[in-house]
Amino acid sequence: MTAPPVLDLTADAVTLTRHLVDIESVSRNEQEIADLVEAALRALPHLAVVRRGHTVVARTSLGRPSRVVLAGHLDTVPVNDNLPSRLEDGVLHGLGTCDMKGGDAVILRLAATVTEPVHDITFVLYEAEEIESEFNGLRLLSESDPDLLTADFAVLMEPSNAVVEAGCQGTLRVDVRTRGERAHSARSWRGVNAIHAAADVLNRLRQYDARKPVIDGLEYHEGLSAVGISGGVAGNVIPDECVVTVNYRFAPDRSEAEALAFVTDFFAPYDLTVTDSAPGALPGLDRPAAKAFVDAVGGPDGKVNPKFGWTDVARFTTLGVPAVNFGPGDPMLAHKQEEHVPVAQIESCERELRAWLQGEETQQ
Amino acid sequence: MTAPPVLDLTADAVTLTRHLVDIESVSRNEQEIADLVEAALRALPHLAVVRRGHTVVARTSLGRPSRVVLAGHLDTVPVNDNLPSRLEDGVLHGLGTCDMKGGDAVILRLAATVTEPVHDITFVLYEAEEIESEFNGLRLLSESDPDLLTADFAVLMEPSNAVVEAGCQGTLRVDVRTRGERAHSARSWRGVNAIHAAADVLNRLRQYDARKPVIDGLEYHEGLSAVGISGGVAGNVIPDECVVTVNYRFAPDRSEAEALAFVTDFFAPYDLTVTDSAPGALPGLDRPAAKAFVDAVGGPDGKVNPKFGWTDVARFTTLGVPAVNFGPGDPMLAHKQEEHVPVAQIESCERELRAWLQGEETQQ
Repeated sequence: MTAPPVLDLTADAVTLTRHLVDIESVSRNEQEIADLVEAALRALPHLAVVRRGHTVVARTSLGRPSRVVLAGHLDTVPVNDNLPSRLEDGVLHGLGTCDMKGGDAVILRLAATVTEPVHDITFVLYEAEEIESEFNGLRLLSESDPDLLTADFAVLMEPSNAVVEAGCQGTLRVDVRTRGERAHSARSWRGVNAIHAAADVLNRLRQYDARKPVIDGLEYHEGLSAVGISGGVAGNVIPDECVVTVNYRFAPDRSEAEALAFVTDFFAPYDLTVTDSAPGALPGLDRPAAKAFVDAVGGPDGKVNPKFGWTDVARFTTLGVPAVNFGPGDPMLAHKQEEHVPVAQIESCERELRAWLQGEETQQ
Repeated sequence: MTAPPVLDLTADAVTLTRHLVDIESVSRNEQEIADLVEAALRALPHLAVVRRGHTVVARTSLGRPSRVVLAGHLDTVPVNDNLPSRLEDGVLHGLGTCDMKGGDAVILRLAATVTEPVHDITFVLYEAEEIESEFNGLRLLSESDPDLLTADFAVLMEPSNAVVEAGCQGTLRVDVRTRGERAHSARSWRGVNAIHAAADVLNRLRQYDARKPVIDGLEYHEGLSAVGISGGVAGNVIPDECVVTVNYRFAPDRSEAEALAFVTDFFAPYDLTVTDSAPGALPGLDRPAAKAFVDAVGGPDGKVNPKFGWTDVARFTTLGVPAVNFGPGDPMLAHKQEEHVPVAQIESCERELRAWLQGEETQQ
């Protein structure tokens, strides 16, 4: 299936998802898809469009008392023999179907068809979410044009099985280092084995008892895991250094500084080097805009889950904008070769968001 | 100091050691030194010389009731800003002074000057001891011309502080593998962390209690050491595999098969892959030829130490030839940039071997 030269926003969201999937847009190769998205949005008279790099922003300016953001990234992880898209038994298969062109299609459909929303809306379709943070389109936009992201609430359409996932956990990565003294392995007692010493680090990890704090009614679940280990000089040498790379996923009631203090204390007295750190995001469900959203999309007994992974929701939180994840697709399938999305989830996300934006009660 | 075009075997052993050291002969670059050694030995009418590759063998054929081997390798580890040789305060410094051109010089001096020995003598100066076993000149000779190595006793002149070191320990290297299940590190409880599982392997290593068997009156000292560890898929993935590389140095009362059985049992039920194995060598001090040698070079209360590291002594043992290490230089300095040898040790080795070969009592 060849992608058409223009995006047809009058097509249904599933057809539109297929169009987007069939435009290959691996990170750093988003020019074509961004061009098509920009052209399609510029054709809509009720929206003002701004482009920065391969990030496209489209906004209503209806003077509503509140403004909301709907955001999705346009890039995908590398192609893995999973293009073009394939629709089978109500499930759409292919690279980006789950992460996250189904969500992007919903955004574009709503941009084209919700012309009289109860909130002003900012639609953001951005580049380079799947790679190093320095290229992230949302981050760049928050620095170049922070006013474009000003809002009372944001919905990030990352896959969440079409259920609201609130907040996100932070992530901290550290190298924990044990030291010893080299010696020839034929006279091992003359040295101090740094790999043997790492047993203490691993024993502590095995005994770690995960915090599961409840925040705004949601139970988070922390994790402290070795994600790498390396040591060794040569096959006949007692090694003088071993490095355990540890990833701490921390609930959003802890700051980055508190997370680092915990890990430092946990591994004391070992040397510790921070290699990566990103804050979590509180669910913020006590805020009126968030509460209204949850009531609208989930109904009065609407289900809300905590978000365990880190997402760009944290960037909105840093900007002071409460935000949630809400999009079609199973987050466990993201980055998998076999990623796919149920058509029904694309449709329900579109229906519920449309009702919310138009101030209607949703039909469960 | 430039090496002369011919080796002068009338010079003293220290001068000869300097000549040999100043001929750079890093493994696989032994042509020049082997040519000079061959030419010098061929000039001696009482010896029959054979060359194989860059290995030179010279033998007496006096019809003596017994035959002994004196052996040394001609190659060195790579140059490390430690050439040419330098003589200071009775200590000779430079690449190969310790490992083992001091020993080679003693061999050449004895070859030139001991014309009426009480044992027939086979002098072996061989290539490529410092690199992969496939290139080892002694190994190649044992395959191409095993009769050239037939003897009642062998002295390998590896550095041993001019004290007899008997036998050698074997070495076995295995990869011990723990397995788990991958998961995203934000949901670590959905996976099984193979690096955490390696704690059990390291804990066993920490609790290892070294065997120290006494064989022929010598106390050996085994070692079981992690010499490498690796694991990890990505910074956000619970790893499904971790590999601990373990080196077992085993006393010569254990065969390679027994060593492997011990390690397999020690780490059961983990997967185990053998990556290297070499047998030890029993000291064989109960054999008459070995006993006579120890009595001669060490006197009636002569000191003999066990050899902890692996040396080519094990090859002689495999050929059925009892063998010991006995050479000038501290084995702890081998392969070190600052390697050196006391002149007095070169001299005492030559003196004691000469007395033994000539059937004299040594003067302690």
